[in-house]
Amino acid sequence: MLNGLTFEFAMLQLINMDITNPDIERYLFGLCPQEPEFIRRMEEQARKDNFPIVDRLVGRLLMLMARMKDPSLVVELGSGFGYSAYWFARGMRRGRVVLTDRDADNLKKARSMMDEAGLLGRAEFMEGDAMESAGSFCDIDILFIDMDKQSYLKAVKTFEPCLAPGGLVIADNTLWYGKVLTGEDDNARAIMEFNDYMFSHPGFDCSLVPLRDGVLVAMKKS
Amino acid sequence: MLNGLTFEFAMLQLINMDITNPDIERYLFGLCPQEPEFIRRMEEQARKDNFPIVDRLVGRLLMLMARMKDPSLVVELGSGFGYSAYWFARGMRRGRVVLTDRDADNLKKARSMMDEAGLLGRAEFMEGDAMESAGSFCDIDILFIDMDKQSYLKAVKTFEPCLAPGGLVIADNTLWYGKVLTGEDDNARAIMEFNDYMFSHPGFDCSLVPLRDGVLVAMKKS
Repeated sequence: MLNGLTFEFAMLQLINMDITNPDIERYLFGLCPQEPEFIRRMEEQARKDNFPIVDRLVGRLLMLMARMKDPSLVVELGSGFGYSAYWFARGMRRGRVVLTDRDADNLKKARSMMDEAGLLGRAEFMEGDAMESAGSFCDIDILFIDMDKQSYLKAVKTFEPCLAPGGLVIADNTLWYGKVLTGEDDNARAIMEFNDYMFSHPGFDCSLVPLRDGVLVAMKKS
Repeated sequence: MLNGLTFEFAMLQLINMDITNPDIERYLFGLCPQEPEFIRRMEEQARKDNFPIVDRLVGRLLMLMARMKDPSLVVELGSGFGYSAYWFARGMRRGRVVLTDRDADNLKKARSMMDEAGLLGRAEFMEGDAMESAGSFCDIDILFIDMDKQSYLKAVKTFEPCLAPGGLVIADNTLWYGKVLTGEDDNARAIMEFNDYMFSHPGFDCSLVPLRDGVLVAMKKS
């Protein structure tokens, strides 16, 4: 038995728990066509290892963005074992996606997966802190940010001059488990600052899509 | 006081009621920059008249799609009083958006609003059933579907040959108040059929974004 106050609190917790109605998410997953077996294996592995990856819904959005943008150069900051890079590469008709990660082992897995996907020819791998090598990139068509959350703002400021006119910034986890509502941890506050920066920047047009953990898509005005 | 069963039922109702967590929606609205006064007036009018419009979050997504696509020709099926057309036109650097509606009075209001926005030069107006004049369009870069829900499937089949290679289909209300979960009315079932068609069509890449009432974005493979 619950009294009114506890009930209200439970409701509030519930409201704050999910970004998108889980039933709606299931419906959206149900719409997606079947994917190759190695994708399912990669998703399964991520679940087992509790390794954060964008899911298939976000993956499809990344592929669509790549198809629309027809990029020559995609740079990922925080590639993990290459799940997002797979979706970008799958949407690309030309050009290359540069996967960066601090962890050599992640990139090794990513290379093997891109190979299995037949997309190795689209991929380059760079171990270490990509921000230190920002200068080596120019005319980035899509910058994908999925690294540690407290570096998002620094990352976009560092890479802004390296974006092609009309280039996209796509950032994952920009609703940070819904904690942007309360700013209850350092990551949430960093993400809130990043979102504020992007949406108030006169040089970007932004949209934040509540898919999974929130995907910010911004286009540099040309 | 509520017993466990009533509590569970209330929770279920709550989960099924919203597509996106309303607090998250409020956060997203809060990120958006201020808009011109006439936009706020138009939104206010829509609320008063209970006239369905895409909201500002979807509007910004439409603008972003127009910026990315740089279309020569946008065709809207079901323009209402021009709220979505405003966002497309605002994102366009060239070309025109064709507003269609069965209601002459809606289009009159749309014309006046586009005039006030300084975007009349981007707009054309066509009264009546746009499907009957599909043949008069070719190489549509963006087809926006927001007409009566039971016509979506017919609309996309009718206009498919009129899409440019790489052209987009953007359809609003593709989660139909969450009723796609149950298919509880004719509109919901029609939308479900439309979504299934689009996602299983080998000629389109699709993503369905749970913004407001659901926005399906599909790109015709080129």
